[in-house]
Amino acid sequence: MFIPAIKGQGTDEQHQKWLPFAYKMQIIGCYAQTELGHGSNVQGLETTATFNPKTDEFILHSPTLTSSKWWPGGLGKVSTHAVVYARLITDGKDHGVHGFIVQLRNLEDHSPLPGITLGDIGTKFGNGAYNTMDNGVLRFDHVRIPRDQMLMRVSQVTREGKYKQSDVPRQLVYGTMVYVRQTIVADASCALSRAVCIATRYSAVRRQFGSQNGGPETQVIDYKTQQSRLFPLLASAYAFRFVGEWLKWLYTDVTQKLQANDFSTLPEVHACTAGLKSLTTSVTADGIEECRKLCGGHGYLCSSGLPELFAVYVPACTYEGDNIVLLLQVARFLMKTASQLGTGKQPVGTIAYMGRIEHLMQCYSDVQNAEDWLKPSVVLEAFEARAARMSVACARNLSKFANPEEGFAELSADLVEAAIAHCQLIVVSKFIEKLQQDIPGKGVKKQLEMLCSVYYLFLLHKHQGDFIATSCITPKQASLANDQLRALYSQVRPNAIALVDAFNYTDHFLGSILGRYDGNVYPKLYEAAWKDPLNESDIPDGYHEYIRPLLKQQLRAARL
Amino acid sequence: MFIPAIKGQGTDEQHQKWLPFAYKMQIIGCYAQTELGHGSNVQGLETTATFNPKTDEFILHSPTLTSSKWWPGGLGKVSTHAVVYARLITDGKDHGVHGFIVQLRNLEDHSPLPGITLGDIGTKFGNGAYNTMDNGVLRFDHVRIPRDQMLMRVSQVTREGKYKQSDVPRQLVYGTMVYVRQTIVADASCALSRAVCIATRYSAVRRQFGSQNGGPETQVIDYKTQQSRLFPLLASAYAFRFVGEWLKWLYTDVTQKLQANDFSTLPEVHACTAGLKSLTTSVTADGIEECRKLCGGHGYLCSSGLPELFAVYVPACTYEGDNIVLLLQVARFLMKTASQLGTGKQPVGTIAYMGRIEHLMQCYSDVQNAEDWLKPSVVLEAFEARAARMSVACARNLSKFANPEEGFAELSADLVEAAIAHCQLIVVSKFIEKLQQDIPGKGVKKQLEMLCSVYYLFLLHKHQGDFIATSCITPKQASLANDQLRALYSQVRPNAIALVDAFNYTDHFLGSILGRYDGNVYPKLYEAAWKDPLNESDIPDGYHEYIRPLLKQQLRAARL
Repeated sequence: MFIPAIKGQGTDEQHQKWLPFAYKMQIIGCYAQTELGHGSNVQGLETTATFNPKTDEFILHSPTLTSSKWWPGGLGKVSTHAVVYARLITDGKDHGVHGFIVQLRNLEDHSPLPGITLGDIGTKFGNGAYNTMDNGVLRFDHVRIPRDQMLMRVSQVTREGKYKQSDVPRQLVYGTMVYVRQTIVADASCALSRAVCIATRYSAVRRQFGSQNGGPETQVIDYKTQQSRLFPLLASAYAFRFVGEWLKWLYTDVTQKLQANDFSTLPEVHACTAGLKSLTTSVTADGIEECRKLCGGHGYLCSSGLPELFAVYVPACTYEGDNIVLLLQVARFLMKTASQLGTGKQPVGTIAYMGRIEHLMQCYSDVQNAEDWLKPSVVLEAFEARAARMSVACARNLSKFANPEEGFAELSADLVEAAIAHCQLIVVSKFIEKLQQDIPGKGVKKQLEMLCSVYYLFLLHKHQGDFIATSCITPKQASLANDQLRALYSQVRPNAIALVDAFNYTDHFLGSILGRYDGNVYPKLYEAAWKDPLNESDIPDGYHEYIRPLLKQQLRAARL
Repeated sequence: MFIPAIKGQGTDEQHQKWLPFAYKMQIIGCYAQTELGHGSNVQGLETTATFNPKTDEFILHSPTLTSSKWWPGGLGKVSTHAVVYARLITDGKDHGVHGFIVQLRNLEDHSPLPGITLGDIGTKFGNGAYNTMDNGVLRFDHVRIPRDQMLMRVSQVTREGKYKQSDVPRQLVYGTMVYVRQTIVADASCALSRAVCIATRYSAVRRQFGSQNGGPETQVIDYKTQQSRLFPLLASAYAFRFVGEWLKWLYTDVTQKLQANDFSTLPEVHACTAGLKSLTTSVTADGIEECRKLCGGHGYLCSSGLPELFAVYVPACTYEGDNIVLLLQVARFLMKTASQLGTGKQPVGTIAYMGRIEHLMQCYSDVQNAEDWLKPSVVLEAFEARAARMSVACARNLSKFANPEEGFAELSADLVEAAIAHCQLIVVSKFIEKLQQDIPGKGVKKQLEMLCSVYYLFLLHKHQGDFIATSCITPKQASLANDQLRALYSQVRPNAIALVDAFNYTDHFLGSILGRYDGNVYPKLYEAAWKDPLNESDIPDGYHEYIRPLLKQQLRAARL
C-alpha cells in the first residue's frame, strides 16, 4: 500500500529522494490515516501538521485523544516510517488533510523517536487472522519533519509557507481508488471461491439420512436445501470473478482517460467501483459464514479452514469504505442521474440503461413459462426495470422534501436498497456479457450459462418483492423463476465438484481438511486432532491442581 | 446436561445408584452422542453396545473410524464418565440407539481405562470462546460395562438378554426437548440483547460526518441507515424474550399434559419449539455480527466484546438440531396440518389459525394509510394469511408428485420458506399477546408497542415478496408499511438507550469497552491497548532476529 501511495501522490523529486527508502518500506512502512475518532469521515481527521517557516519544518501533533492514529497494520511494532495523514496548517489556516512521510523509529535500535508514542491496539477477531500482525496506535507530541516530507504532487507548501495547488488534476487520485477497489473485488471472488470449494467438496463427502435397504446415506450435496444455499454462492464466486476481470479493463480505460485529461466518466466509474466493492465484500463475508454452516458442526473446527477465512475476510466490509457508506455514495449518483434525465445529458457506462427510462418505466416482462427465464434479454430488462423504477421511486419521494439533504437522510434505507438493485444489475450484465464471448473448453460455456442463470434467478427470487412491487414481473412470473431455479440446481449438481476443482486451488492454499481434493476427510480430521498440543499427554495439565481435588472433595461432600 | 439426561431416561434404581455419582458428574460427566460421521441423523450412530448374556455385560465398541465420538464438551481431557449413545445389540439383533453410563477414566490417576482412547479434537472458531474447554474424541475397543449401566427407563434388557419396552411412554423425552429448546430461545434473547446493547450505546457515542459550523458531528445512531439495521434487532431481542417466556409456560403446560398421558398437543409443541429454536438462533447469530459491523472498525477489536460473543454463540445454529433440518421438521408438520384440513381434526395452539383457512385464503388487507399498520388485528391477519397461503401453495405443489417424499425433497427450499413464515407469525403473535397484558412502569407499554410494530413491519418489509406475491397485501400497502416503519425508527430513537439499559447488564457481564454504561469509550479503548502483552516493550520480540537483519540487508542491496 505504501509505494503506490507515494507514487500516486509524491513529486518527482520526492520519488528520487525516497525511492531507496521506499524499497525498504515495503516491509516497514505503513499508511497511517484512520484515527481513534475518525474512519469514514477522512476530512474530520484531527492530527495536525503545522508549518513553521522559521525552521522550514512541519510540526506533527496529536491534539486530542481521538486524534491518535489507530488501526494501521504494522504501525505499532514494526514500521520505521509511515505516510501520515494530517490537517495541514499554514499561517493559522487549515487546508484540510494531506499526506506526510514521517520517520517513526530509530533505524539503529528500533526505538520510537522523541515525541512519538507507538503501540499495538490489542487482539482482534479470530484466533489467527489479523492477530498474526500488529495494528498500531501512534501519537505525536510536536514532532518536527522537514518541509519536503509532505507529499506535494497535488498541493504544495513553498519555502515561505504559501499553500498552493499544483496543476496536476486532483481527479488523478481516483485512478488509485479504482485500482484498489478492483483488487478488492478480485479478492472477494478468491475468498468466496475458497469457501465454496471447501463446502462443495465436503458436501459430496458428507452423507446423512436417506439410507435405503442398508445402502449408503445420501450425500448432503444432493439435498435441495443444501443446493439452494450452496449453488448461488458458487455462481456468485464466478460472477465476482468476471466482474473483477471487467474492472481490470475499467482501470486501464480510466487511466488512459485520466492521462488524456478526460474526466467525463469519473462519477460513473466511482459509483460503480464503490458499489461493487460493497456488494461483493458483503456477499463474500456472509457467504463464507454460510459455507461454514453448510459444513455442519465440523465447519466450526479451525481445521475446516473456514473460521479463519471468515475472520480474515470480514474486515473487507469495513475497510476501504464502509459498505453502507459506499452504497449511499452510489445512491447519490443514482439520484443525480435521475434528476438529469431529460436534460440531454446522456448516462454512460453502467448507468446507460437510465437513458431508456421511458421504456423501462412501462415495460413488462413477457415470460410465459419457466424456460423463458433463461433468455438473457428478458432477464436484463427485468433487472434494468427494477433498478430504474426503484431509483425513480426514491427520486420522487425525495422531491417531496423541501430540504434535499434532509430527504436523503430520511430515505437513506430505501436509497441503499435502490443502490443494491443497481449494483446487482451490473454484476448480472457483466456475467451475461462474458458469456457472449468465446469460452474455450468443451461444454464449459454451457456450465457457465447455468451458473449465470442460477446467479440472477437466485437474486430475482430473493428480491422478488422489489420486482413484483414495481410491477416489473407478476407473482406468476416470480413463481416460474423459482421453478426454473429449482430445475437449474439439479442441472448444476453433476458438475458441481468440477466447477470448484476448476478454481485450481491446492490443498495447501485451501488449508482445509474438509475441502481436501482427495475427499479423504474423516481419517485426516481424526489424524489432525492428535496434533493438538492438548493431546501431548493423557492426563491434562491442571489435573492435579484442579480436577483431582475437586473430585475428591465432592465425593466426600456427597457422602456426608 | 448430564443430570437431566439421567433423570429423563434412567430407572429409579439407576437414580439411587448413580445420583451420588451424578453430583460429581455435574463437573466431570458428559453427553456423548455425536460421532465423526453422524450428527443430525442420530439413528445412524455407529457405536455398538452388544449384550453378552454370559457375563451380564454390554461390550461398547467403535467399529469404524466414523463411529468415533466427536464433539462432546469436556470429554477429551476432563470427563471421568459419559452417557454414551450406542446401537443396542442383543442376540445379533440391532434395537437402535440407546444410552449407557460408561466410566472413561481411572478415578485415582485420571488415566483412560483400558480399551478407551480419549483426546481433544482441536482448536475452534474464535480466540477464546469454546477454545477455553476441550471438545473430545472417544473410541472404544471392546469395553465391558455391567448391564445395569444401560439407561432403562423406556426400554430394558433382561438378565437373559431379552429386549423389552417398559410401559413408560416414549413421548416423555419430548418434555426434556421442550425444556432444552426453551432455554436456547431464552439464551438467544440474552445474546442478542447483549450485542444490541453494545451497538446501541456505542452508536450514541460515535460521531461521524455532519458537523455544522464547527459543531459536533452527528451521532451515528441518528442515521436512518444505522436505525434501520439496529432497531429491528433491538425489537427482536425483546420479541425473543417474550416468546421465550411463553415457552416457559408451554413447558409447564406440556409437562402437566404428559403426566396426565395427554399427548395430543405434542406434534404442535414439537414443531413450535423446533421452529423457534431455529428462527431465534439464526437471527441472533446474524444479529450479533450485524451489531459488530454497526460498530465500524472498532467492532473488530476483541475489546468490543462482539467477536467473542459471535464465536461463542454461533454454534447454537448447529447444535441441538441443525437449523435447516429443524425447519424441515416444521414444514412436515405444516404439510400434515394442511392435508388434514376439512377432515374435522381441528388445528390447535400455534397452528390454530389454519382452522380458519377458508377466510385466510381469500381475505385481503384493508390498510388505507400508514397508521393502519399499527393495528394488531390487521397485522396478525396479514401474517396469518401469508403463512397459510405459503403452506397451502407448498401443499398444492406437493400433491403434483406421485411420490410425496420425492416431492418433499424437491420442494424443500420452498418448504423452509413456508416454515419461516409460520415461525415469524408465532413470534409476532406472542409479542402482541404480551402487550395485551398489564405492563408495569409509566410509558413502558407505549415503548414496547413501538418495538413490536418495528419488529413486524421490519419483517413485512423484508419479506414483502411473500406478502405481495400471495396477494395478502398490495404493493401500495407494502409501501405504506415501509413509511410507517421509517416513522417508528424516529420514535424509537429518543428512548433507544433506555431500552438497552433496561436489560440491566453490568459492564462486567457485557465485557465490552464500546458498550460501557458511562459511554467513556475512547479513553478506555486507548487505556486497554496498553495492557496488550505486545506493548510490554517498545522493541518487539524478534526485532534483533528478523526485522533488523532485513532492514540492514535491504539497505545494502538498495545501495549496490
